[in-house]
This record gives sequence, C-alpha cells and structure tokens, in this order.
Amino acid sequence: MRILVFNAGSSSLKFGVFDRARGAGHETRQVLKGAFARFRDGACEVTLTVDGKARSGTAPHGDLTAAIAAVPALLEAEGIAGIEAVGHRIAHGGAEFTAPALLDAQTLARIERLTPLAPLHNPANLQAVRVARDVWPDLPQVGVFDTAFHHTNPPCVTTYAVPQSWREAGLRRYGFHGTSHKYVAERAAQALARPLSELKIISVHLGNGASVCAISLGRSFESSMGLTPLEGLVMGTRSGDVDPGAFGYLQRQLGLGIEEIEQALNHESGLKGLTGSSDMRDVEDRAAGGDAAAQLAINLYAHRVRKYIGSYAAGMGGVDAVVFTGGIGENSPSMRRRICDGLDFMELRLDVDRNQSVDLSDRAAPQIQAYGARVAVIVTETAEQLQIAREVAAHLDRPEAAPRPIPVAVSGRHVHLAQAELEALFGPGYALRVKVPLRQPGNWAAEERVTLEGPKGRIEHVAILGPLRPRTQIEVSRTDSFALGIDAPVRDSGHLDGTPVVRIIGPHGAVDTDGLIVAARHVHMNPRDAEAMGLEDGQNVAVKIGQGERALTFGQVMIRVQPKAFTEMHIDTDEANAAGIGPGCEGEVIELEAHLDAG
Amino acid sequence: MRILVFNAGSSSLKFGVFDRARGAGHETRQVLKGAFARFRDGACEVTLTVDGKARSGTAPHGDLTAAIAAVPALLEAEGIAGIEAVGHRIAHGGAEFTAPALLDAQTLARIERLTPLAPLHNPANLQAVRVARDVWPDLPQVGVFDTAFHHTNPPCVTTYAVPQSWREAGLRRYGFHGTSHKYVAERAAQALARPLSELKIISVHLGNGASVCAISLGRSFESSMGLTPLEGLVMGTRSGDVDPGAFGYLQRQLGLGIEEIEQALNHESGLKGLTGSSDMRDVEDRAAGGDAAAQLAINLYAHRVRKYIGSYAAGMGGVDAVVFTGGIGENSPSMRRRICDGLDFMELRLDVDRNQSVDLSDRAAPQIQAYGARVAVIVTETAEQLQIAREVAAHLDRPEAAPRPIPVAVSGRHVHLAQAELEALFGPGYALRVKVPLRQPGNWAAEERVTLEGPKGRIEHVAILGPLRPRTQIEVSRTDSFALGIDAPVRDSGHLDGTPVVRIIGPHGAVDTDGLIVAARHVHMNPRDAEAMGLEDGQNVAVKIGQGERALTFGQVMIRVQPKAFTEMHIDTDEANAAGIGPGCEGEVIELEAHLDAG
Repeated sequence: MRILVFNAGSSSLKFGVFDRARGAGHETRQVLKGAFARFRDGACEVTLTVDGKARSGTAPHGDLTAAIAAVPALLEAEGIAGIEAVGHRIAHGGAEFTAPALLDAQTLARIERLTPLAPLHNPANLQAVRVARDVWPDLPQVGVFDTAFHHTNPPCVTTYAVPQSWREAGLRRYGFHGTSHKYVAERAAQALARPLSELKIISVHLGNGASVCAISLGRSFESSMGLTPLEGLVMGTRSGDVDPGAFGYLQRQLGLGIEEIEQALNHESGLKGLTGSSDMRDVEDRAAGGDAAAQLAINLYAHRVRKYIGSYAAGMGGVDAVVFTGGIGENSPSMRRRICDGLDFMELRLDVDRNQSVDLSDRAAPQIQAYGARVAVIVTETAEQLQIAREVAAHLDRPEAAPRPIPVAVSGRHVHLAQAELEALFGPGYALRVKVPLRQPGNWAAEERVTLEGPKGRIEHVAILGPLRPRTQIEVSRTDSFALGIDAPVRDSGHLDGTPVVRIIGPHGAVDTDGLIVAARHVHMNPRDAEAMGLEDGQNVAVKIGQGERALTFGQVMIRVQPKAFTEMHIDTDEANAAGIGPGCEGEVIELEAHLDAG
Repeated sequence: MRILVFNAGSSSLKFGVFDRARGAGHETRQVLKGAFARFRDGACEVTLTVDGKARSGTAPHGDLTAAIAAVPALLEAEGIAGIEAVGHRIAHGGAEFTAPALLDAQTLARIERLTPLAPLHNPANLQAVRVARDVWPDLPQVGVFDTAFHHTNPPCVTTYAVPQSWREAGLRRYGFHGTSHKYVAERAAQALARPLSELKIISVHLGNGASVCAISLGRSFESSMGLTPLEGLVMGTRSGDVDPGAFGYLQRQLGLGIEEIEQALNHESGLKGLTGSSDMRDVEDRAAGGDAAAQLAINLYAHRVRKYIGSYAAGMGGVDAVVFTGGIGENSPSMRRRICDGLDFMELRLDVDRNQSVDLSDRAAPQIQAYGARVAVIVTETAEQLQIAREVAAHLDRPEAAPRPIPVAVSGRHVHLAQAELEALFGPGYALRVKVPLRQPGNWAAEERVTLEGPKGRIEHVAILGPLRPRTQIEVSRTDSFALGIDAPVRDSGHLDGTPVVRIIGPHGAVDTDGLIVAARHVHMNPRDAEAMGLEDGQNVAVKIGQGERALTFGQVMIRVQPKAFTEMHIDTDEANAAGIGPGCEGEVIELEAHLDAG
C-alpha cells in the first residue's frame, strides 16, 4: 500500500510517501520526503529527498492550500504514482479519538469541535485535510492523532486537582508527541529484542518541542505535556512547568493579562527566554565559552529531564530502558551525559565511548549504557511520518469485525495460591477441596476461604480459586484495595512483578506476599469465536454493556485467546456496580482500539 | 534561655514557650503550647497545653492584636515568667533573608517590601511582630523565615525558563515549609545516628499544606513549592502542579480571569476540588466505602508524592532516607504504603508491620523500611515552633565575629591523583616530580600535566597537585565543565560519591574515573584565626570581595578549620573573572549564614 502523509503547520507543510508491504513483517519504506516552508507572498521554500538525494529551492506557493494542490504534479514529476491513501497528523484528538479515524465529513466536524483544546495546531491540520479531500476525492483520508497514544493514561495521570466544573469543561491532561513516543518505544523494544508488552520504557523526545513519556508494558502511562504542549520540559521557546501562582504575581507586579503571559510562555520562554537563542547548539557553544546564562539554561534543561526520568521510573515502578530521540536527544552526547549522570542509584549508567560514538545511519538504534548496567539507554531517530503511514495502513487493513454478544461474568475478589503459600496458610501437605467448577475449563472454586489484611483494614471470607499456580495472585476490586489501604495496580493476570505485598491469613498461619492486583478487564475467547469476530489475542477493544441510559462502555478490554476458553468477559464488582449489571448480562464489542504493532 | 514563639495567620495565632539549655546538647523543651482560633466579634476559641495537659474554651479576643496583648496575663496565670526573647515565623523572606534576623524597624521595612511575594501570609506575620514589639518592648524579637532553609537551592532549581524581564521582577522558585523540613532532616539524621552532612534526605511534609524537600548533604537542594505555596503536591484545598496553559483555556472556555482562577486554585482545589472534603481522613473513609471520586483523589495524591520522590532522588543523584511528617505523613499507614509501593527499583521498601505500628510518642522517629532495604524510611512529627525557638536561641547566642581581611587565591583547574590512576597515566612505579610548593603546608604542584576529555571537548595541560590522595579528584571551573560537556557537581573536596566520570589522558595511557567536581568555595583557616574571627569548622559565611561597584559577595562559603592551614579563601577562575580579581586580593566575612544544628 502506497501512502501519502501530511503534517501541516501554520507556516509549513511536511509530507512523505511511504510503501507498506502487506503481510508478515509489515515493513514500511519511505519513497519520498518533502517540505514546504516559510510561506510568504506567492512563494515558499521547498526541499525534496528522493532515493536519499536532497534538493532544495523555492516554489510559487504562497500558502498551505496552494502547496497541497501542487503535490500531485510534484509526485508525477518524480515518477511516483499509485497513491492509495492519505494520512494526516492531527495534533489534538481530545478524549474521544483513541485510534486513527477515517476523515469523513462527520469526523471532521467532531475534530472541529476540539479546536479550543489546540487553537495553535488543529486549524492548520484541518485545513490540510479539507484541501486534500478536494485534491484526492477518491482516496481514503485517515487522521492519526498526536494525543491518541496517551488514551491509556490512568485517571490519576490525566486529572488535575481542580474544581469539578473545570474538569467537566475539559481541563485535563492529554499529552502530545504520541506518534513519536509510540514509534520510539517500538524501535527500542526491537533493538532490545524483547516484547514491548514486557518493558517499562521512558521515551525522551528532545527537539524544539520536548516531552518525556512513560510507556508501561506497551501502553502510554504518562507524558510530560498536559492539557497543552506547554507543560513539562524546558523547550526551545516554551517554559515548561511553572508555578500556577506566577499568573497572579505577573498581573500584580507587571500588569500582564492571561493572553500576554500565555503568548510569552509559548514563544518567548524556554531556551530563548533564558539565553536569547532557542537553538541548543548555539547555547552549548556559548556555555563552553563561559556564558553564564547559557550555562544556567543547560543546567536547568538537563535538571528537568533528569527529574522526569526519576519521576516516571517511580510512577511506573521501575524502568527497563531510557530512549533519547529528537534533534537534541540524537545529537548531543554532552546533554545525554548531563541527564544520565547521577542516575546510578537506579542502575542507569552511560558508557562514555558508546555515548560519544552514536551513529544513527540505516535506522540504527544503538545502546549506550555501561556494560552491566541494568537500565538500557538507547538513541534512535524518531519517524513520525513513517509511524503515521503504518497506522493508516493498519487502520485500512484491519479486519471487519462481526460483533456478537459476549456473556459478562462478574468476578468477586479471590486468591490463586501457589504451593508455598497454600502450606503456610493451611499447613504442610494440605490439599484444597473443590467446591464448584467454574465456566473456564479446569478451573474451580475451593471450599476454603482466607482473610486479607492491609494497613487500613481486613477483608474476610475471600474465595480461593484452583488449581494451584506457580505464583500466588490476589485479585481484588479497586474498592477492596482502598478498604485494605494498599495501591493495587491494574494488571493482566500473571503479570505480577513489582506488585505490592498483602498479608493473607489462613487457619494455620499468615503470609506476606506480593501479587495483589486489580485484574485488568478482559475477554476469554476461544480461537473459533475470535476468528468469527475478527479479533486477535492481545488486542484491546471497547465493550458496551447494558442498554439505554444505563449503558456503559468499557475501554481497554483485552482479548485473551486460549485454546479451550469459554468465551466470556470478566469484570470486577466495582465495574458491575457502575454498570448496574445483574445475572445473564451481555456485552458487545463496539470499537477496536489502536494496538501496538511490531512492524 | 526562655523563648516565646508566635505563628500568626489571618484567623489564628499559635504560640509556644520553649526553654533552651545553654551549652553542649542544646536541648530545647516546650513549656507551654497555645492557640487562639476563629476570631469573630469580640471572641475566639483558645486551647492551652501545659505539662502535657490540654484545656480549651473561649476567650474575649476578637482579633490578632487583642490575642497577642492577652498573652502576658495568660503566661502570668500559668506561672511562666522570665521570657528572654520572642521568635516569629515569617512566611516569605524573599531572596535576601537567608538566616534568622533581628526584627528592628529597618528589617521590618525590608520584610514589608516582600509582601507582593506572599500577600496571603506575610501581612499577618508582620502584624504580630508589630504588636509584640509594643507588648514586649525590651525583648529581642527575631524572625525565622519559611523560605530561608531553601536559600542554598542552586540556580537550576530556583529559575523558571521565562523571559528575563519576569525573572528580574522576582519570578523565581523560593520554596516554603523550610523550618519543618530543616527540623525533619535533623531529626532523621539523629534517628540514623549519622551526620546530616553525609546524607541525602527527602522530607515529605503531608499536612493541609504539603511539600517535598530534597536535602543534599545537609543543604536544601530543591522543594516542591515554588514562587508560591501553590506549586507541587496536591494539598487540602490547593491544586499543586497544573499546566500553565490552563489559564488561557479557562479564560476562553469559562470566561474566568486571573484572580478567580488563582482564588479557586488556592481555596477550591486539591482534595476539596476532587471530593468536596479537604480532610484526608474523610477521603480515605469514603474511598474504602466505594466512592470513586475519593478513590481517584487518593490515587492522584499518592501518585504525585511518589513521582516527587523519584524526581528528587534523580535530582540529588540518590537518596539515603525518605522521611514522612505532617498530619497525613504521620498518621496514614495506607498513604505511606501507597506512596512507597513501586519504589523497589530504587531499593526503597516498607516493612508491613513497622509501617503499621508507628508510634510517635516521646518524640520517637521510627524507621519503617524493610530489613535490608538500602533507603531508610522514617516517620516523625514535625516541630516548627521548637525549631524556631532553636534558631532564635542560636541567633542570639552566636559569637560576635571580629572580621579581618582574608587573602583570596584563585585555583586553576587541577587534578589530585590516587596511586592507581597515577600509574595508569604515567606508567607503573612512576613518581611525580615536585615543581613548586603551595601555600597550604605539605601541598605542591607537579611538573607533569594531563589532558581531560569529555563528550564536548578536551582540556590540555591540566596541573597535577601533590601529594597523592586515596581517591582521584578532578577540580574544574563551571565553564571547564561545559567545555568538557559533563555536569560536574559543586562539592566540598573529598566528597566524591556519585560524581561523574571523566577521561584523563597521560603519556602512558588514559583512565576513565569519577571524581569530577567544581570545588565549593571555601576558606582554609587555622584554629587561631578561626577563634579570633568567631568562626567554626563547617560554618557557612558570606564573603565580600573587591570594592565599590565591582564588589561581589559570595554566599555559601564554607569555613574549613585545619590545624596547620594557611588562612586563605579559594575560588575558581569563573568566580575570579566574575569579581574581576587580580593578585593580592582580599575578602571580608560580612555575614554568618544559618547553619545546621545538631541540637
């Protein structure tokens, strides 16, 4: 599939043509790379790279519309034909766009309504879509959202501690640079030859805009940009984090209003505000020459990045790899040193020579940590347009789902025991007694019960499910976790590393064991049903349960395909209460969500 | 010395009487504790604790002035006489107050000028001082500043990346809760039986206001409150960190102005904004009962604290102890669990039972980490008034300095080698040749030179100073560190743990070794001179160098008393350039700075 990708800004248009091989491997190859920049009276600058050869010059296009309209002739001149789809970068997809979307009139209207969230970025993106729909009326146009990768961020990450009326007005954290962070995380997993779904990664994108993203077990967990791309790191011209009390102070001391302050925080701050230059290469050279303002800017810049790395490792409960990308992340060995020095306490150490000799040609993603350091440090180019092309292709290639109702079962709190804990709780050589078989073949509930205990309280008569497992796992609802007073993470069954310790009390004794989780929503499914519904193991879907006003849609439901499974969705008691679910309830898959892609 | 301490707010007055024993140990004991609260038409509530017995009732004082005026009679009724000094908590000391200050008319005028920085807090503090000066005209009145402990924060911490004109207007990070964090850090060092000057501590103050403070080797390095007490953690009614882009969004969407937004961020946000209640005990109980808003509030609250712990460990390059204090930090085992679970990656683990059974009676500060965990976790009550009493006493007790000129020497970049590095650079069995003796007895410069190499560049012909040391130490200027491209921390000589690696190149070979520092400013001093000038080993002073417009005052200059030292101040080439210093220059100690106190 040959895909044309646009990334439109207010004064520039970047574009690219990509070929995506069908079938296994899904390799995507860039055929052409181009940019129109600095639109002015009837002219602009143009650069084109075809077959690795770059050319530049001027072109007679005075604005975005004229530039897009000129693309067909440009492609024809380069001998590039057969475009099958057009992909568009859309800065802000709000809370509703969690995956690529076909840009029909209805969808465009929905995106239009999000403009207040991204008044600087979305209008140019939408203008490009409208022009492209006129120029290529017969091709599918697909939007890929910079925010979508972050839709998996949990509420404790997306919420600001502000009045309810503000939160209802849309004031929340979204996160940006999602396409870059997603690409980078996949590239890092590839470089480490490990599945992304088993890794905790911190992606550090240091370009003119800059953000850090924590990617936990394949899902974006948190990123440093929030409601807007202003929050977080120090950037070329943006301040990053500032005390919200600054507005009142600036108003009282300097008589400034919100618009002036916002304008200056976006365009006159960051490296530019500290040194006069927004270009890190300038700033580094000045600092080496003794310029105190430049030295402070570099210290401040690095300090913020280093703190976010520590912060996100703490937020995710550890980190396996830190990945640097973006112009500064790729090209400044001294900035990488400055950021990583001092992180020894979390077993992150750079190798001096590997850091110095980074070479990114041929899509290399070298590891630069010291030999024996536990945390990998990787440098890679980012490739947002290539990632957009991949997602457009995946979106258009996706199988048509044939939804059918799925029975919903409510899981009460329960414990799966391992041999050691069984014996500690019930005595040496003890065997559990089967009380009743469960619908998933081979599984049963035991006669025995145990008590759970945490810093806030106890929960008694907790069921034990058999058979025994290699590792003890305790599944509770969110409310149970608050009653215990322990922060149980939402995890897929069996993913127990780093889970908190809870005390289990049995008739023979008590044990303190990790393994306390809130089970992630999931659907058990046998291969026959999965095939019929166009679903794959590991895929995330949204499932609608109930009818009318009481209907509730659960996002991020994981499909687990197992050979002998009884097809059934499992939710916990909190979720059942929220949806007002009784016995015999059924759900329906209504949306496929973007899932990570190894291609 | 018997000291009366006031902490005045807009609607309450807390006070206490403390006895401070003179001489070694400096134990400070609270004699009386009192509070007037909820001033209204001619009445208020009063609580008094004497000899551990608490009483409460109402009193006929309608405002702060009347309440303070009533204190002498109240003390007399309790049989408490002989007050020798009055201490006052002052919220904001700006950049200029770095230590306690005698509150004479001139000082009060200086504090008055800081009101724009703390419009909510300083006016009540100042009012209390004025009334107390009338009531006790013959006693010294001493102000202790909530910001002063943080005056050691480095510029990369205190600076926001905003336009220069804003920074010149006073927009910077200050930090608050300094008196509490200082007390807590000292208490933690005591509990660990280790010198505070060797520890990296994170103090987590979770009360109605909440902040985290990183205390590195005895000095405040960073704290989560910034220009105002609004930045940082989620608090009872304050939002903590919010995207600065929120102001523009709220203006455009809801028509709000700066004052309304600021008011709501201070008084209608935090736990109150999320749940309706600002009391964590309520919120925890509701969460255990299934209230989703309360559950989210707790998750968000804990997530922010956990991230700050990771962030500050990264900022300081590691952490030895995390200390919980404040109402929530002291009393919620489940909140401590929630915050600490997941920090295993930095070798921080709670012990379930120790966390559960914390008992703080008799000023206990129990350790609650798991046995074998590297990072200590400590719980302690804070004692701001007691700390204020200590500082007042220390301020009044301090010896009169008799300043005399101190010669200033400029240290160029140099290397101290250990045996292993010497042999790696110059060959096995090599001995350095003495070129010239230095003024500090027993020290000399060698004939040999080496080259330093970092990711950004090389520095050649670097001097070697003898004799050999147990550990190699490389001292460069800040500008040198930027020329190398390595972030060298400011350290006292010999404090090399966690310092970055640099490559040293000699004629025989090259070595990569840690030990790269920018030497902290210091004065070598022999005991005779120290006594004459009223200075002690380890004390920080400010030193003024030069005359007239070129005069420059260096803060945080450490006094190092050594038996045979030649009394002399050492600064590096950057500092010398900044002060325009030539040969034969002298400095003068002009101010004693607050120093940490083991009492």
